Amino acid sequence: MNKNTMFNIIESDLTRLEAELLSVIHSPVELIKNISDHLVQAGGKRLRPALYLVCARSKSVNEAQIMPMAAAIELIHMATLVHDDVIDNASTRRGKPTANARWDNHASVLTGDFLLAKAFSIVATNVNNNMLKVLTDVMCSMCEGEILQDQDTFDPDQSEDQYLIRIAKKTADFIAASCELGGMSADLSQAEVEALKKFGYSIGMAFQITDDILDITASSEQIGKPAGNDLRQGIVTLPVIYALKNSERKSELREIILNRVPTEAAVKVGLKIVHDTAAVEYSYQRVADYLCEARSVLPQSIPSGLRECLLEVADFVGLRKY
Amino acid sequence: MNKNTMFNIIESDLTRLEAELLSVIHSPVELIKNISDHLVQAGGKRLRPALYLVCARSKSVNEAQIMPMAAAIELIHMATLVHDDVIDNASTRRGKPTANARWDNHASVLTGDFLLAKAFSIVATNVNNNMLKVLTDVMCSMCEGEILQDQDTFDPDQSEDQYLIRIAKKTADFIAASCELGGMSADLSQAEVEALKKFGYSIGMAFQITDDILDITASSEQIGKPAGNDLRQGIVTLPVIYALKNSERKSELREIILNRVPTEAAVKVGLKIVHDTAAVEYSYQRVADYLCEARSVLPQSIPSGLRECLLEVADFVGLRKY
Repeated sequence: MNKNTMFNIIESDLTRLEAELLSVIHSPVELIKNISDHLVQAGGKRLRPALYLVCARSKSVNEAQIMPMAAAIELIHMATLVHDDVIDNASTRRGKPTANARWDNHASVLTGDFLLAKAFSIVATNVNNNMLKVLTDVMCSMCEGEILQDQDTFDPDQSEDQYLIRIAKKTADFIAASCELGGMSADLSQAEVEALKKFGYSIGMAFQITDDILDITASSEQIGKPAGNDLRQGIVTLPVIYALKNSERKSELREIILNRVPTEAAVKVGLKIVHDTAAVEYSYQRVADYLCEARSVLPQSIPSGLRECLLEVADFVGLRKY
Repeated sequence: MNKNTMFNIIESDLTRLEAELLSVIHSPVELIKNISDHLVQAGGKRLRPALYLVCARSKSVNEAQIMPMAAAIELIHMATLVHDDVIDNASTRRGKPTANARWDNHASVLTGDFLLAKAFSIVATNVNNNMLKVLTDVMCSMCEGEILQDQDTFDPDQSEDQYLIRIAKKTADFIAASCELGGMSADLSQAEVEALKKFGYSIGMAFQITDDILDITASSEQIGKPAGNDLRQGIVTLPVIYALKNSERKSELREIILNRVPTEAAVKVGLKIVHDTAAVEYSYQRVADYLCEARSVLPQSIPSGLRECLLEVADFVGLRKY
């Protein structure tokens, strides 16, 4: 199958995925249904299920398995987002009100739990135990990543390594698992599955670093949430870690982070201090490194249509501005 | 196997369960480990895994499966408790500080998610898909029950049926599933598994109604949390529903519930109004009805040691004062 045929198929898969998501979140409890509908309709890039589907369609295709699995992957992602928004007390995501803002924390925590249970429920009967283990383990890893992030907030002394471990657990491991699960669905060889997992990991790292750069550089309109949000919450990201080490005004930036409840003016000053260094260039260089690694781990043995698709995903992650 | 032999075995299983719980919640992230340890060590009745183990040991015993499954059942229960405590802003449970009180809401929500993922993770490789589906579906049902409870708060017009549907989802379905899963582990016939599920359901209903009665009648020392807690939070339980219908002071009780933030004096008045009716006797009668049903659904075909054990559990639920 060539790349374009594959893209067309995945596009139609992703349309089916939206219907699948709306159908599996059915609950007799109206409030759960309303919140879940809101979450599905708020949209998103669907990056994880898309990567899963691309990999899962690369060789033998298990039609009964792929749509539930793709839906489960997105449901888990949605559940973590809805819990994150509760934790961060966020009022908007992707330019739309969050569940906790529109309803309340109670209902949002419980709907998150419901989506998690639903995710495991829909794959329980369609997926083998090894795949299920990948999915549950990565969920554990994500929780660990979020807790690490929580522990690291307001700490200007954290290292780049600490940051990388955290975003691996928070983001990259799940994107890696999405590719890995796709390879397992398609019945690829163990070495190929391993390569897909590594590809996903590098893409995931590049993706999260880009996210963290955009929080510094993008306008609120572009990213659908207020810019400088991380700094405001004390989440110290790669560009900020760079500036804390290399800026002439590093002690001023340090104070802004230690302050815990910075004024809007202080957030602006913080962003300017970061901008005035080579932090953004440095961070984009790390993104480029990860993307280079992602491209290089894909062996020739991988079906060529899949290989081309994945390389295109790597290009997309490198270019995205939102 | 006779009843006493069985009780001895289950007792040693439950000792092993504590070690198993502490071992499976291992995480490289210290905070997760600390919170999880705290939750395990805070103890609890371990009713659900005990029922599972009793049923699972009744015929063919799958040693590789039963301990992970028992641990998974308790982890799911623990995860829902830690999320409930966040939602209710509870400061103590079983006389000990809650995770959200000792740490914070962020870490508690995430640790709850971690425990859920861990629960599904440890059974992923040990359990067949049908059992997994029972476990995930009942988790969905519990979330629905909690949301229904949330929706019903401060509503003096709710019916007894509404209450029963809610506690079935919140509590009884999970206890039913624990028995059902035990029967599946032991490879009992479908009819026997179905009977165990019904038994668990009735026990669960009796258990929750007793819990709701104790909130009215017990001292703080007995139940390890302040008495009248439900009324304080606007959770309208069976004795209160009875009093709202039958008390001479029903309009006064109504006002206390509608008030939403009742004073401690108002909570005391509310409790007195309930006590002055036959609400507690009426509710204990419903408990007795469910226990009678529980005893009657156990067919003679069920292994006699198991039958006797389960009847003893029914007696315990009927007598408990804490």
